[in-house]
Amino acid sequence: MRIGFIGLGAMGAGMAGSLIAAGHEVTVWNRSPEATAPLKEKGARVAATAAQAAGGDVVHSMLANDAAVREVILGSVLDAMPAGSVHVNHATISIALARELIAAHAARQVGYVAAPVFGRPDVAAAGQLNIAAAGAPAAVARVQPLLDVLGQKVWPMGDDPVRAHIVKIAGNFMIAAAIESMAEASTLTRAYGVSAGDFLGLMSGSLFASPIFRTYGGLIADERYSPAGFKMTLGFKDVGLARSAAEAERVPMPFASVIHDNFLEAMAAGDGDLDWSALARVAEGRANLKNR
Amino acid sequence: MRIGFIGLGAMGAGMAGSLIAAGHEVTVWNRSPEATAPLKEKGARVAATAAQAAGGDVVHSMLANDAAVREVILGSVLDAMPAGSVHVNHATISIALARELIAAHAARQVGYVAAPVFGRPDVAAAGQLNIAAAGAPAAVARVQPLLDVLGQKVWPMGDDPVRAHIVKIAGNFMIAAAIESMAEASTLTRAYGVSAGDFLGLMSGSLFASPIFRTYGGLIADERYSPAGFKMTLGFKDVGLARSAAEAERVPMPFASVIHDNFLEAMAAGDGDLDWSALARVAEGRANLKNR
Amino acid sequence: MRIGFIGLGAMGAGMAGSLIAAGHEVTVWNRSPEATAPLKEKGARVAATAAQAAGGDVVHSMLANDAAVREVILGSVLDAMPAGSVHVNHATISIALARELIAAHAARQVGYVAAPVFGRPDVAAAGQLNIAAAGAPAAVARVQPLLDVLGQKVWPMGDDPVRAHIVKIAGNFMIAAAIESMAEASTLTRAYGVSAGDFLGLMSGSLFASPIFRTYGGLIADERYSPAGFKMTLGFKDVGLARSAAEAERVPMPFASVIHDNFLEAMAAGDGDLDWSALARVAEGRANLKNR
Amino acid sequence: MRIGFIGLGAMGAGMAGSLIAAGHEVTVWNRSPEATAPLKEKGARVAATAAQAAGGDVVHSMLANDAAVREVILGSVLDAMPAGSVHVNHATISIALARELIAAHAARQVGYVAAPVFGRPDVAAAGQLNIAAAGAPAAVARVQPLLDVLGQKVWPMGDDPVRAHIVKIAGNFMIAAAIESMAEASTLTRAYGVSAGDFLGLMSGSLFASPIFRTYGGLIADERYSPAGFKMTLGFKDVGLARSAAEAERVPMPFASVIHDNFLEAMAAGDGDLDWSALARVAEGRANLKNR
Repeated sequence: MRIGFIGLGAMGAGMAGSLIAAGHEVTVWNRSPEATAPLKEKGARVAATAAQAAGGDVVHSMLANDAAVREVILGSVLDAMPAGSVHVNHATISIALARELIAAHAARQVGYVAAPVFGRPDVAAAGQLNIAAAGAPAAVARVQPLLDVLGQKVWPMGDDPVRAHIVKIAGNFMIAAAIESMAEASTLTRAYGVSAGDFLGLMSGSLFASPIFRTYGGLIADERYSPAGFKMTLGFKDVGLARSAAEAERVPMPFASVIHDNFLEAMAAGDGDLDWSALARVAEGRANLKNR
Repeated sequence: MRIGFIGLGAMGAGMAGSLIAAGHEVTVWNRSPEATAPLKEKGARVAATAAQAAGGDVVHSMLANDAAVREVILGSVLDAMPAGSVHVNHATISIALARELIAAHAARQVGYVAAPVFGRPDVAAAGQLNIAAAGAPAAVARVQPLLDVLGQKVWPMGDDPVRAHIVKIAGNFMIAAAIESMAEASTLTRAYGVSAGDFLGLMSGSLFASPIFRTYGGLIADERYSPAGFKMTLGFKDVGLARSAAEAERVPMPFASVIHDNFLEAMAAGDGDLDWSALARVAEGRANLKNR
Repeated sequence: MRIGFIGLGAMGAGMAGSLIAAGHEVTVWNRSPEATAPLKEKGARVAATAAQAAGGDVVHSMLANDAAVREVILGSVLDAMPAGSVHVNHATISIALARELIAAHAARQVGYVAAPVFGRPDVAAAGQLNIAAAGAPAAVARVQPLLDVLGQKVWPMGDDPVRAHIVKIAGNFMIAAAIESMAEASTLTRAYGVSAGDFLGLMSGSLFASPIFRTYGGLIADERYSPAGFKMTLGFKDVGLARSAAEAERVPMPFASVIHDNFLEAMAAGDGDLDWSALARVAEGRANLKNR
Repeated sequence: MRIGFIGLGAMGAGMAGSLIAAGHEVTVWNRSPEATAPLKEKGARVAATAAQAAGGDVVHSMLANDAAVREVILGSVLDAMPAGSVHVNHATISIALARELIAAHAARQVGYVAAPVFGRPDVAAAGQLNIAAAGAPAAVARVQPLLDVLGQKVWPMGDDPVRAHIVKIAGNFMIAAAIESMAEASTLTRAYGVSAGDFLGLMSGSLFASPIFRTYGGLIADERYSPAGFKMTLGFKDVGLARSAAEAERVPMPFASVIHDNFLEAMAAGDGDLDWSALARVAEGRANLKNR
């Protein structure tokens, strides 16, 4: 298929590479043009503007946040897409923006498939992402082969794209909650002489043996918060998406409230650029572990 | 070795069975004598009193809570143990009682190894538990072969038995936090039309793929809270152990506070005998999901 | 002085009346024109448009929320005010809008005095409000005699109008916190057989003897949540202003987070139109008091 | 009447003095005998043991906590009281101990009136306390004239002494909540340039004009946390009484949970001996106000 791929950050670059490797004709665009070079080498065409990447059968976009999606997709890409083509949005965005996008695509007779992804850059490059997908059945069916290229598994969430977006938002909240639970629990064990490494090693090697607990348990055990894999400020933004969605539907989420307050404390302390697993520093600071 | 095994609940019965199967000479005792029959059939001797099970090289105990440990161990077993023998305590108990036990065993020159276990009855019966172990090196070394029979892995936590007990307490807190995070997240997705099964299936099948998230995610998805695998009231007690330990060492744990309040709400609503994953009912009740 | 008064709700009507009674020449405007009749009778001129009320020395406005201030003041009133005149804004608004207003007034060389008020309609009508006031000294000095007419006391907060706005926002948060503290405390005493009336009567008659505790303690004791003096949804909005201001400056406010979640629960239960003191229903519901 | 008065701390000394001044025959006892001298001068008899103060018509006790009440009252005083005499307990104690005391007094046919007091030492000395009183009607009636000497107002709470004790516990929780609400609110205003003094001066001079807000608002504004009027550790204990009482009756109290965690943080930081209004230091520390 003739595919446009917009947004070549650490995640998008790997995803676009997978689509090229699968034999699709891919035209890429990125705000900073340097990111296009490695893909050009793999056979991608490079568009001079985002709109120029939008003329094919399908456009994938993997943009950073609401502002970028609004500017690039609503600003130019959607208008350049032919009626009947499909836009696959991989970004983590607010429910409010999702609803705007759904209406705008419908008005232009362009299909809209929400397909947020779970996984890190190496997983993206290997085509092993987990993908939640939702949209009109015909549109989803059309892009299913592409999603199958990108993911080890595609999890269908129905025909309303909002559903896939809320799944991504709720999933990221669960990651933040996992970090906070490890932060509190390991602060407790440390106060009794058990290192975070010994405790979290057991947890992530047994009952909680899974990518999230292994990855973030390791970072907390090693206090390896820099360079950040995912910055505190981005985690704060994502939990904010959960809180906004919850507020709109009157869903109290006390864990989300605790996490929100802890993010604020971390950022007030100047830790905003650390990995979000540095929530553990808030917990240990409250217990004054360093001065015992 | 000549072993006494005290406490034949769902967990203890499987553990004692493993020790018998490994060729040890095991004398068992249980408050309700009916529980001894299946083990007698496997070759165990049956003691008429707890003290009569205490005369060998090692006593294992797997009792329900502080009160049972206090009554059985401090009440009679410890006095019946020969100097130089070793008591392996598998129970989940308070740090305060742990300290009493350590002093009492030292006074009697009986070794004390804290060896709380992670795993459910079927895992116990299969000798596949995860075991945190701590105690004087000589005592631990002596019972290591027995722990190896019981567990797929023994995680050494040093020479102070308190350390293994705090690991168990902190671990159970993490399970409660995992339940609450699934409860809040799936309430959010349900408010947007995604079932708990679809959402938690994705989570526990990808980033969170681990026994805790699979087990409790499944219970929440199916609203299968009865019969309880682990009762709300027991979860409340265990999170109480974490909170007491945290209070004693001045460790603020806001997630534990949220969970405490939610347990109270569930028990006030009459749900104390449900599985502790019924914390999800508190979350959905607050959002009034049933009346939408 | 020649004064315009914009916004004749329960509060504004009383305030405008005080200014008329003090001998000022007052031109009033209200979105629903019926509200102007009683003031016309007292001697006010009635403007056909908000802009027509803006031609004098000073414009007071008492509008409901950010949206109304944005539409009326930024939409027409400010453009109609002569350079050198002063706008006195009595509304409870966000810090973000406050900053927009400050810039817009400066650009038009119109003075801007933030003068949010504390007190209820009867207090407003009696000229007995408490007023926090901030703005450029010359502008404040010019309107001081008018503020003295409206309030029993004017509390100067410096020359940055933002300061008076944050005082109002923080003050309303404190009221919500007082309600929640009475809700929890009286739920506790009720569980032990002491009515909310007996308990809160003592509190608000002794250590806490003050308008807030008397007023809301009485409402809670009598479960008199309807008709609402101040609706739950408005309280939710105001605590939201505190939370937004706190977030922007990285100020963790765990009490505000608890209140936020409780408001959501109340609104999910359909209590959004009750008085905000109906937070007590959330507390009693959690403890299941009604079914004991 | 012939009265014994046990416990001559800052509160008890003033109360005993009031009873002497009212013409009663008062025998005093205190653990540290120096405290008896000033009362001897005013006409009190001094007992050598607590039991020797227990032989009259009524015994008042004003002891520090559960441990002191248990030791002094259950340890010796109650046994020394004649059947038909009445014990008036002014202390702040747990509900669990209250129930023990009720049973023990009944068994000895000694009346038990719970009469916890609200007010500070100067208020106690002036006989201007607020007193919650509960007990069997005949017992209360008998000591009513004495309570009237001690208090500006006696608030009857019924015939179950537990009711007066829970009122005191819930009241102290409300004070802690008032402190925390001022801590958070003034941290917010300070982040926007308004001093705690300016903000809390307005609040405690208007809507919240009452002893609690004036007293603690002043301490927070002046950061005058030492010497402590009421130590953080005592506040922690009292909020613990509320939390225990709440737990026993399944009453979720999220504000109490927040306060509990904040007390732990303050004590971990070494602030346990400061006044409990130093909760404001926790709030300002989280927002990192000092390093802005």
